[in-house]
Amino acid sequence: MNEFELIERLTRSLPGNKSVVVGAGDDCAVLDAGPGERLLLFKTDAVVEGVHFASGTPPEKVGHKALGRCLSDIAAMAGTPTAALVTLGLPRNFEVGYVEGLYGGMNALARRHEVAIVGGETTTNPERMFVSVALLGWVAQGKAVLRSGAMAGDAIFVTGELGGSLEGKHLEFEPRLVEARWLAEQFPIHAMLDLSDGLAGDLRHILQASRVGAELLSASIPISAAARRAAKANPSAKPPLLAALTDGEDFELLFTVAGRRAVPLLDAWRARFPAARLTCIGKITGKEGITIRDRQGARPLTEHGYIHFA
Amino acid sequence: MNEFELIERLTRSLPGNKSVVVGAGDDCAVLDAGPGERLLLFKTDAVVEGVHFASGTPPEKVGHKALGRCLSDIAAMAGTPTAALVTLGLPRNFEVGYVEGLYGGMNALARRHEVAIVGGETTTNPERMFVSVALLGWVAQGKAVLRSGAMAGDAIFVTGELGGSLEGKHLEFEPRLVEARWLAEQFPIHAMLDLSDGLAGDLRHILQASRVGAELLSASIPISAAARRAAKANPSAKPPLLAALTDGEDFELLFTVAGRRAVPLLDAWRARFPAARLTCIGKITGKEGITIRDRQGARPLTEHGYIHFA
Repeated sequence: MNEFELIERLTRSLPGNKSVVVGAGDDCAVLDAGPGERLLLFKTDAVVEGVHFASGTPPEKVGHKALGRCLSDIAAMAGTPTAALVTLGLPRNFEVGYVEGLYGGMNALARRHEVAIVGGETTTNPERMFVSVALLGWVAQGKAVLRSGAMAGDAIFVTGELGGSLEGKHLEFEPRLVEARWLAEQFPIHAMLDLSDGLAGDLRHILQASRVGAELLSASIPISAAARRAAKANPSAKPPLLAALTDGEDFELLFTVAGRRAVPLLDAWRARFPAARLTCIGKITGKEGITIRDRQGARPLTEHGYIHFA
Repeated sequence: MNEFELIERLTRSLPGNKSVVVGAGDDCAVLDAGPGERLLLFKTDAVVEGVHFASGTPPEKVGHKALGRCLSDIAAMAGTPTAALVTLGLPRNFEVGYVEGLYGGMNALARRHEVAIVGGETTTNPERMFVSVALLGWVAQGKAVLRSGAMAGDAIFVTGELGGSLEGKHLEFEPRLVEARWLAEQFPIHAMLDLSDGLAGDLRHILQASRVGAELLSASIPISAAARRAAKANPSAKPPLLAALTDGEDFELLFTVAGRRAVPLLDAWRARFPAARLTCIGKITGKEGITIRDRQGARPLTEHGYIHFA
């Protein structure tokens, strides 16, 4: 049983109540906390030593990543983060300076996005550092951008460049909070998420939630320099396009908008964020699954993101 | 450096913002999420295999404890819990049935208190199970009961019986949510917390936050049958009174109320909760520190809860 199957089984019968607007299965939970024009966004995420970061990673980067992952999920809803709690599972003989550095990285990122850190807990996890962040945010009523709104004919956009995140970006990315809120204010965004499992896998989450399909243009996928370098340095590494499609932890925004808005959106983006790349990589179709089109024609993209060479 | 010193150091310079009503240092963080008559309560807590529960503990009890600890903190603010997120760090070769049992225990407790479970995350923690729960709740503006409101002349009350929780109660306690809300609705409660570190240590948290002292009546401390049994079975175990003062994980409410309200409160409690014990164990004084009074007179209770026998 893989992670997705386990989650599917566990989330079948979770208790609910009338506060729940969106429960398990989107980037954040969305809650109606009573009278007021705001909905709450609620998210947790954990990074574990040896799993999400290597032992010996500078602690500031670990703290940055731990909070940054949650912030990226609030961005994916076009929300504003408010307050975080931090749970630290500390190994035996941890160094106080390391923990202070971890908080330093977290605090700096929190301050840039006006997020308060309002407490948390330290406990013991003897063999390795375990950092879990819980984050609260908000979004105006009716303004949360879910995964389920994509429609046939939508243009599919992605921010930044994809692949090779493990070369460094996964510890240093800036969550796209400003960009996501701007997008949702300026244009009716139909569906959005942040890329954590890789474009091919995450796009499938939008398609399944929206009950649509997609066609990607191979030549349009924005491949990062890191993915190209990795392929060049090691002939047995993934080819760059495959890395861009399947590497995880890009923490870029993937979203869809009605096709007729694609050009105005690109123009407005370039005026507002001249330094940040935004690319139209394909379109939403009415036919289930993902196809990828290159000079040889269109081919299906398999379940796990790997290109099926016929 | 112990846990409290580490937390003191880490919480000196946490980022804040205008949503923060109460940050790190009370049972929950209290947040003002914008217009509306409610404040948010925000709490995380973790249980770790081999630290907070033994390997082989029935999974339903682990799930119950993981959520119950957070619920107990919401109770300590006289709040109402709303929604929880669950982070599971799963060891290698975990059994799906165990994880389902853990959720089963959590779901049952959540349903009894109308708490929604709105998602979470599964990740890897190779050597042991790590369960972190993030919980949101609410309290009416001005109605959160903090640790900082105790005043000289207050009566000190505790619910239930203390000590020996590790014999079983720590896996089965019912968080005192109903009782805490009733108390805060019926009487002006000055300060409250839930007992997790032991009466002597936790009372000190109230005293430090409120800048007062306390005198306890030795004969009034409600000692649990489990603490008595443990002392009887093992002559080298803590004497029962010491266990009641210093054992952790009682998850009972400790609160203070103006002395003149002590008798009406006890009468009203007995009418409303005839099956639940409530005991007045002493009073708040203007003099720093804790003294404990028995037939031989009053003696200071030392820092770590141990009675100093002169």
